[in-house]
Amino acid sequence: MEPAGPRYLIREDICRENIRTMADKASSAGVIFRPHFKTHQSRLVARWFRDAGVTRITVSSLGMAAYFQQDGWDDITVAFPVNLLEAGLINELAAKIRLGLLIEDGETASSLLRKLKYPAEVYIKIDTGYHRTGLEKRDLPELLRILEILDKSSLLTYRGMITHAGNTYSASSPGEIRRIAESSMQYLTDIAREAGIPSSKHLLSIGDTPSCSLLDRFPGMGEIRPGNFVFYDLMQKELGTCSCRQIAAMMVCPVVAVHPRRNQAVIYGGAVHFSKERILVGEKTVYGQMASCQPGSWAEPTKNGFLVSLSQEHGILEAPATVIRALKPGTTIGFLPVHACLTANLMRGYYLVSGQAVDHF
Amino acid sequence: MEPAGPRYLIREDICRENIRTMADKASSAGVIFRPHFKTHQSRLVARWFRDAGVTRITVSSLGMAAYFQQDGWDDITVAFPVNLLEAGLINELAAKIRLGLLIEDGETASSLLRKLKYPAEVYIKIDTGYHRTGLEKRDLPELLRILEILDKSSLLTYRGMITHAGNTYSASSPGEIRRIAESSMQYLTDIAREAGIPSSKHLLSIGDTPSCSLLDRFPGMGEIRPGNFVFYDLMQKELGTCSCRQIAAMMVCPVVAVHPRRNQAVIYGGAVHFSKERILVGEKTVYGQMASCQPGSWAEPTKNGFLVSLSQEHGILEAPATVIRALKPGTTIGFLPVHACLTANLMRGYYLVSGQAVDHF
Repeated sequence: MEPAGPRYLIREDICRENIRTMADKASSAGVIFRPHFKTHQSRLVARWFRDAGVTRITVSSLGMAAYFQQDGWDDITVAFPVNLLEAGLINELAAKIRLGLLIEDGETASSLLRKLKYPAEVYIKIDTGYHRTGLEKRDLPELLRILEILDKSSLLTYRGMITHAGNTYSASSPGEIRRIAESSMQYLTDIAREAGIPSSKHLLSIGDTPSCSLLDRFPGMGEIRPGNFVFYDLMQKELGTCSCRQIAAMMVCPVVAVHPRRNQAVIYGGAVHFSKERILVGEKTVYGQMASCQPGSWAEPTKNGFLVSLSQEHGILEAPATVIRALKPGTTIGFLPVHACLTANLMRGYYLVSGQAVDHF
Repeated sequence: MEPAGPRYLIREDICRENIRTMADKASSAGVIFRPHFKTHQSRLVARWFRDAGVTRITVSSLGMAAYFQQDGWDDITVAFPVNLLEAGLINELAAKIRLGLLIEDGETASSLLRKLKYPAEVYIKIDTGYHRTGLEKRDLPELLRILEILDKSSLLTYRGMITHAGNTYSASSPGEIRRIAESSMQYLTDIAREAGIPSSKHLLSIGDTPSCSLLDRFPGMGEIRPGNFVFYDLMQKELGTCSCRQIAAMMVCPVVAVHPRRNQAVIYGGAVHFSKERILVGEKTVYGQMASCQPGSWAEPTKNGFLVSLSQEHGILEAPATVIRALKPGTTIGFLPVHACLTANLMRGYYLVSGQAVDHF
């Protein structure tokens, strides 16, 4: 069946292969595999992880944690700094599951303790160079203050230190991603040692898909939390962290107008479908790349076929003249999304290649 | 009541004032006011338009048209090129309401006619300089071909020509917006004359909020279709098409971490709330501006207080040291969104200042 509007299509076989590859890697490296579910936000996809032996997960909001808890997941880390305004939701979850929370200052730890009614575990967020959230080495006094507060608490248990080396996304080569990942792990190990905690007493956790895709060993780490790898996307392909054959998610969009004079076509698929996430490919800002969505050539990109502009519902495809001239209103074409997580979040439900609808938080 | 997570807050009084201003302007200028509802996508907000005498509306998708049809709107233009794959939905709507469709090539007109079962009206999409969709003067043969097809049809009635001068959004000054708007109206008038249609036989329609906000007269036009003006936003403020006091929509987000050393704070509010729409303010790329959300000082922006980075759930606020040092985790702050339409689309439901929840398509 042809989709009527823009549709997000998922290949189950590729997802399962991506999950298996990462689970095997974690197992070989001797680290806990706690995948981030913010990418797919789907109970069905979550079950594919369960089939691969996964029992511990990461999410990015308490609402998402509640959604997965309802499907039986009972060991969930919310990888976002504690929002004190959500103490009610924290208590609801802490009453039911093993809940991991992120803390990066003593005052929040104290405030949380005043509101908490059930036990939860705490990871201290460390900034290993991304400079988004977390403590640095020079914040050691604050880090020790948090540990002291946790030490006195019967409800909050210190579990370890956590980082997200999101700066790998700005790397210009796979080699640079590896260097960032290695220095990030080293930094985490160093700060833990400076805090005086024996490595047997806690766990160090790293996250991002670029690092976890390129590295095979995670020295000193106890846990990895990649998320995007289940689908991969154009951004990962451009970073060199996946091949096209590993990309499991594609947008399929109707062509609504063809403008051969400027080598462009208009598709039904805009900012409310793809998201406005953009990357530079060479000198060009792009929002997606045209690609085959046929089974035999799935995700094979069309050279120089890029979404160069998105408004609310329109997308502008720019491609070589031969490609544009072959398009016709009323047909559909495939696109590799720039950022599979944001596209999944906007599309909400998506579809398997079989046509089966997939739930979404 | 404090919001627990990010919340999109709407001032009904400001929306109603924005609606009244635009409705009065259309009335004085002698043009039909057919506002675009893709901005708010809400039945409640739609009723405020009805209170101001609006009976004809514009939407950007057939799904949105069906949503408003269910609330009694019966004269709807879908300002998006006909997607032939949605002929089923077109028929469902055409059976119930006065439906306006956009066509820009003869083949689509013919294909649509083969599938159509109920009458609908057609606007021919004209490209007056934005170069996204539509026909130009040199496409006159194609335009005449469409008119000929429509002329022979008993189901599709030619209604007029339509344009969206989205290039006003790239203007560097209000003066430039006015020039683009004027040349766009002139172009539309010229192409209609070249097609040989007497002005009494059809209607010319223009759209964008920047043009409709700055102009008082729309010579030759029969209809205006602005949408964003009901909320306005940071983009419009920077374009000089609204004042802060006209901005009706704000994001209210919890502070989750404060980093005084780099004059930054982390808020709960990211790409899945604001959207990744960005603009340049001076040399800086920003995703929102900090502003008061108190009744007396609503939407008054904080000088140099900008969202400088967004990941999936996190936002990074950069502001002067005195502003940052006054922030505390567990409190909330307001932000002017860059693009109110995309933020509304992501937040889905929003809230009135009274706390009342507002529906969203």
